[in-house]
Parts: sequence; structure tokens; C-alpha cells
Amino acid sequence: MCTHAAGSLQNATAALLEGRDRLAAQVIGRERELEALRAQIEDLARDALLFHQPVAGDLRAVVSTIRSAGDIDRMNRLALHVAEAVQRRHPRSVLPSEVRDDFAEMGRLAVALAVKAAEVVRTRNVIRAVELDRDDDAMDVLHRRMFEVLMDPAWPHGVPTAVDITLLARYYERFADHAVAVARETVYAVTGHEPDAVPI
Amino acid sequence: MCTHAAGSLQNATAALLEGRDRLAAQVIGRERELEALRAQIEDLARDALLFHQPVAGDLRAVVSTIRSAGDIDRMNRLALHVAEAVQRRHPRSVLPSEVRDDFAEMGRLAVALAVKAAEVVRTRNVIRAVELDRDDDAMDVLHRRMFEVLMDPAWPHGVPTAVDITLLARYYERFADHAVAVARETVYAVTGHEPDAVPI
Repeated sequence: MCTHAAGSLQNATAALLEGRDRLAAQVIGRERELEALRAQIEDLARDALLFHQPVAGDLRAVVSTIRSAGDIDRMNRLALHVAEAVQRRHPRSVLPSEVRDDFAEMGRLAVALAVKAAEVVRTRNVIRAVELDRDDDAMDVLHRRMFEVLMDPAWPHGVPTAVDITLLARYYERFADHAVAVARETVYAVTGHEPDAVPI
Repeated sequence: MCTHAAGSLQNATAALLEGRDRLAAQVIGRERELEALRAQIEDLARDALLFHQPVAGDLRAVVSTIRSAGDIDRMNRLALHVAEAVQRRHPRSVLPSEVRDDFAEMGRLAVALAVKAAEVVRTRNVIRAVELDRDDDAMDVLHRRMFEVLMDPAWPHGVPTAVDITLLARYYERFADHAVAVARETVYAVTGHEPDAVPI
């Protein structure tokens, strides 16, 4: 599910950078598929609670699955919002040239975070989770930089473009935060410590 | 926890409308208290799974508690973001006069949604949950109106104010969505139907 979210944002970002309307439509078209996947995962989690009555590490794994499914669902919806912005402005490009590279980098970081979070979930490698916080810091730097660009009195692209960029930047930043949350959930499942209490 | 979130957003909105820096600080200061409350609720949910091994409706109630705690945590953080915006711009007011009434109304709706969601959780009154979707539609109308105001070529307040308003409007809209999600979780707990499958 997390790998799916990474793929959706990767396509949505390519659509955004290259103004590819059809690719945006493809991201939007996959929404139902991802909803079905979420329902399936939650059914499995519930069945695990009901029929296996797990304790300790197994119980934590199920609880963290339920929480992570919520985070990844949000990631998918954020990728969808990026694709919708591309469609809404098509054939006009959403991004002026000044911020294209920043969005390419935000896209790269956010997709990398989702791929790493998926790997942490799969391998239960807690050490690997440390890397996600570092990548997320890089995302926060880019996100803040975007606001500096917008706040510059010399910004030449007017309010509507600024509003689009504000929301898009926030989608990427939120996507990254949810990927970090997914990795933290796995840390909790493996170690038994509340995610916030673990200094990752 | 949901009532707490309603209180936080009510205070954050009053701080926003009246430029009350100290009230914003008070909202921010309560964050730890709310985090502790979330940890406590999640411990209770985990203990319920571990020691009582619930089935059917009781199991659903525990699963929906874990999910709802995540939604309400986001609601608290969104109220916090509103308070932080007030502090960041103080002593300047964040809102120009044209949008004050809209934000007062968004605040009123969002707080009402959280209060109603808390009531649905407490009373398990599924019928009452219908009202939340209606209120959320009103929120969506206001949210869209806000963008029309910003997209107006005659908008006189420049890009930085537009960026602030874009984000603030999104915080209120997301807060409302999470309140609706909490009510839907309760519908799921009571009826056993996946929230999305219930036509509320």
C-alpha cells in the first residue's frame, strides 16, 4: 500500500512538472484500487485480532497496521490532490520556472520517504527508520524555502499561482510527514515504545 | 479528547479574529496535555485488546477508538497551526476585513462539527452522525468561496496575506473532515459497516 502511494506521487509529480494531463488522469483513476487495498488490509488486521487474539509484539503489529493504513490512505489522497491540480490548470502549467526544481526535489524526497517507509514496514529494520527523519528535515527546509520565494515582494506570478504553490507545497510536506509516521509505527511495533518516545 | 479539540479550535479562532496573542499562546501551551490524553486513550484501547479479547461490536469499538484517536490528534494539531499563525503575524492581524466573517463562520462550523462528533462518540447515536455531513458540506462551500475571493484579480492584499489565508482555510477544512471521520468511525463501531459504505 505504501509502495502504491510512492508510485502515485511519482506519477503525479511527473504530471505536474511536465504538464501531462493524461498521467494525472491515470493517478486519479487508480483511487478506487487503492481504497480496495486499504479495506482489504483493515479486514486482515481485524481478522487477526478476532481469530488469533494476538499479544505483545503481534498485538502491536496489528495496532500499528491499523494506524499506518490511515496514514497511507492520506498519502494517496495527497498524491491525488497533486494530480487534480494538474488537471484543473491544464493546459496551463501550474508551476512557474522558478519553483520547478524545488518541486522536482520535493517530489523526489517524498517518493524516497514512501519507498523507505515501505521497506521499514517490510523488513522491520528499525535502524533504517532513522534515515526517514533526516530526509524529512530536508523536506522541511524545501517547504520553508518555498514560502520565502512566495513572500518575496518581487514575486511576479500573482496571487492565483501563489495559492496553487502554497497548497502543492503543503501536500508534499504532509505526504512526507505521513511516510515518517508509518516508519514510526513500525518502530513502535518492533520495540514496544510509543513512536514519539523513540529518538529516531 | 474530541471536546478538547473543539475547545482548542474555538480559542484559536477567537485569537485569530481578535488578534489575541496570549490566547494563541494558551492554545499552544495545552499541546502536551492533549498528547498525554491521546497516549492514555491508546493505552486503554491496547489493554482492552490484550486483557478482554473483545469480539464483534466490542472489537469494532476498540478499532474505531484507535483510528479516531489519530483523527482527533490531527484536529488538535490543526488548531495549533491556527494559533501559531496568529503568533507569527502578531501584532499585525492575519485576516483582512473581507474574510473575517467567513473565518468566523468556518470556526463556528468546525467547532460545532467537533462538538457533534464528540456527542456521537459518547451517545453512539448514529442518526446524529447524518448532521455532520451536512455541516461539512457548508464548510466546503465556505472553503471554495475563500478561493474565489483570493482568485479575484482585484484582491488588494498581496501574496503573503493570500498564502496565510490559503493555509488557514485549509486547516479549518481539514479539521472539519477529521471530525466527520470520527463520527463515521463511531457509525462503523455501532453498525459494523465500513464508514464509506454507510450512506451518511
